[in-house]
Amino acid sequence: MATPAPVETAAMRRAIELAARGLGHTSPNPVVGCVVLDSEGRTAGEGWHQRAGGPHAEIHALRAAGERARGGTALVTLEPCNHTGRTGPCAQALIDAGIARVVYAVADPDPSATGGALTLAAAGVDVEGGLLAVEAAAGNEAWLTSVLRRRPFVLWKYAATLDGRVAAADGTSRWITSPESRADVHRLRAAADAVIVGSGTARADDPQLGARIGGLADDEISQPLRVVVDSGATAVKAGARVLDGTAPTLIAVAEDADASHLDGLAPLVRLPRAADGRGLHLPALLQALYDREVRSVLLEGGPTLAGAFLAAQVVDKVVGYLAPVLLGAGPAVLGDAGITTIAQALRLDVTDIERLGPDLRITATPARHALNEEN
Amino acid sequence: MATPAPVETAAMRRAIELAARGLGHTSPNPVVGCVVLDSEGRTAGEGWHQRAGGPHAEIHALRAAGERARGGTALVTLEPCNHTGRTGPCAQALIDAGIARVVYAVADPDPSATGGALTLAAAGVDVEGGLLAVEAAAGNEAWLTSVLRRRPFVLWKYAATLDGRVAAADGTSRWITSPESRADVHRLRAAADAVIVGSGTARADDPQLGARIGGLADDEISQPLRVVVDSGATAVKAGARVLDGTAPTLIAVAEDADASHLDGLAPLVRLPRAADGRGLHLPALLQALYDREVRSVLLEGGPTLAGAFLAAQVVDKVVGYLAPVLLGAGPAVLGDAGITTIAQALRLDVTDIERLGPDLRITATPARHALNEEN
Repeated sequence: MATPAPVETAAMRRAIELAARGLGHTSPNPVVGCVVLDSEGRTAGEGWHQRAGGPHAEIHALRAAGERARGGTALVTLEPCNHTGRTGPCAQALIDAGIARVVYAVADPDPSATGGALTLAAAGVDVEGGLLAVEAAAGNEAWLTSVLRRRPFVLWKYAATLDGRVAAADGTSRWITSPESRADVHRLRAAADAVIVGSGTARADDPQLGARIGGLADDEISQPLRVVVDSGATAVKAGARVLDGTAPTLIAVAEDADASHLDGLAPLVRLPRAADGRGLHLPALLQALYDREVRSVLLEGGPTLAGAFLAAQVVDKVVGYLAPVLLGAGPAVLGDAGITTIAQALRLDVTDIERLGPDLRITATPARHALNEEN
Repeated sequence: MATPAPVETAAMRRAIELAARGLGHTSPNPVVGCVVLDSEGRTAGEGWHQRAGGPHAEIHALRAAGERARGGTALVTLEPCNHTGRTGPCAQALIDAGIARVVYAVADPDPSATGGALTLAAAGVDVEGGLLAVEAAAGNEAWLTSVLRRRPFVLWKYAATLDGRVAAADGTSRWITSPESRADVHRLRAAADAVIVGSGTARADDPQLGARIGGLADDEISQPLRVVVDSGATAVKAGARVLDGTAPTLIAVAEDADASHLDGLAPLVRLPRAADGRGLHLPALLQALYDREVRSVLLEGGPTLAGAFLAAQVVDKVVGYLAPVLLGAGPAVLGDAGITTIAQALRLDVTDIERLGPDLRITATPARHALNEEN
């Protein structure tokens, strides 16, 4: 196998950029980008997977390249698929187009899609994997996690003061964080397949949970499924903003809850209660969402639900918006997570720190949840 | 007046560096650095104020420059003094040495020391102020604040988890932050004239409160005065580590407290109680420390005392060590600060973010306490 030339590395970086354009639109598929170079190493075509059910990235790029693909090289962020799904196997399309060399970043971990590299090699195509694999995997973090764990990727987002409060003593909280931070949360919502809040948040804030992004029209934004965990079916009532028509909604209630007042207002999912009786069995909730093709979840709170998710060890990433504000009283950002002594503390690895206006955004990964653990 | 040449700006930067070497050793004086350039603009002498009672920076630099000072330029981080204190007025020393031009960064706000610039100008010296004033003022932040406010500069230091806890539910807290963060706290202690803790911290942690810095011998470190705010005189007992001989100690008790068990163990200061009966009257505490030539205070906690200081609006700077840890339960980093609703929230400006091992160090200034407010 040839060593990737600088032009190939640059093209893979471009493919990773292209892939990111699909975030929020491709579920349950991954985001994928592809750049086709002609036999002289010049860019002949680009493409990305734009939405589930639409052509894969390779097909877009091959169409753009046309005859210039013959004898050329395809750079793809994910191993080309081998299965005949809604759009036919990409491995065969690359072979048919006369591509001489395929370089991909991340091997496909999905058992139903894997094998593309072998098919290509068997047809005499020069195949190489692993180029910029870390960068490309980061771009597909949610999807890769969902394949590995067979449940949606869960990102817990919180917004708090420096002293860990989400509201003042009297419950007021508008606004602790800056407009820049709040706009960033809408970006997270648009990239997620579902947004989850608990009954406390639904009751206290009556949130609408839609994604609004300045400069983008409504039809350019992919709205997440809005999920309220309302075990006792007491928090969401007719007229709640989460029941408006802007996006689909799902109310998760306990199997034994009386939810007759919600008939016809929103789809319900009935789930078993947690073993300790506090709220719902979270693995069952995540399974129900996975069955609805939800591959990524933005957990927006509140403190009780976040504590339950952390205790159940189903949080894959944490994004905290930290406002340079002190309150000295008021509800804490995180409730009981089953931790009683310092040795049980949940330790995280901080992967990114960003300033958003006056605030800090801290991105971190639970240390005991490293993806590598299962590789 | 001549415009500062690049060589003068570079020399002032050097003078600011030199000044910082005195931090923790010069109180109640400021830190000051001085570089003397000869008439050709070459460095002829350097100096800094090394300790209270010792020669001022200008004197050190003039001595090092010797005859080369004649016709030269002195760069000084603070306006040269005009008063005959323990070491004689620097303005006169500069005139006597034949210095032709003096450039200083920050005007001296101390009414007993001011006027040096006028004396120099009257003697025919070319005088200019304000070069790198912001940088130089930052290096003298504590002293300048103490002069302006007529009380010690107060830096509140805290260490907490991302969810704002200082210990787990069972009270264990060793260690939430990293060795790098803890070493940094010792650096803050060494730079402060006094360290303050409340009775809760004294009772729970029995802290020693000394400064230990790896690589520095004991006599190279300036130990802060250790202050325990023990209103009821119930927290500090014989055998407490804060009473060991490594540094001076002061126990602040209420005027009506029975402190007979502390006779001969540590100096006491008796102070009025706060108007609301919770703890001591903090302005009186700060005045008592100021009277003892304390110009900078490191407030180490705990949550109750920190809340009282913030409520009294006597915190000038906040340094938070944030560990990437979640607990979900346990005592909060900040107690009642008199804030009940979001409109009263204490907002800060973040001036610096640093990674210390796995932790973040956030430096911030209370927005309503800007120094400029009083200028």
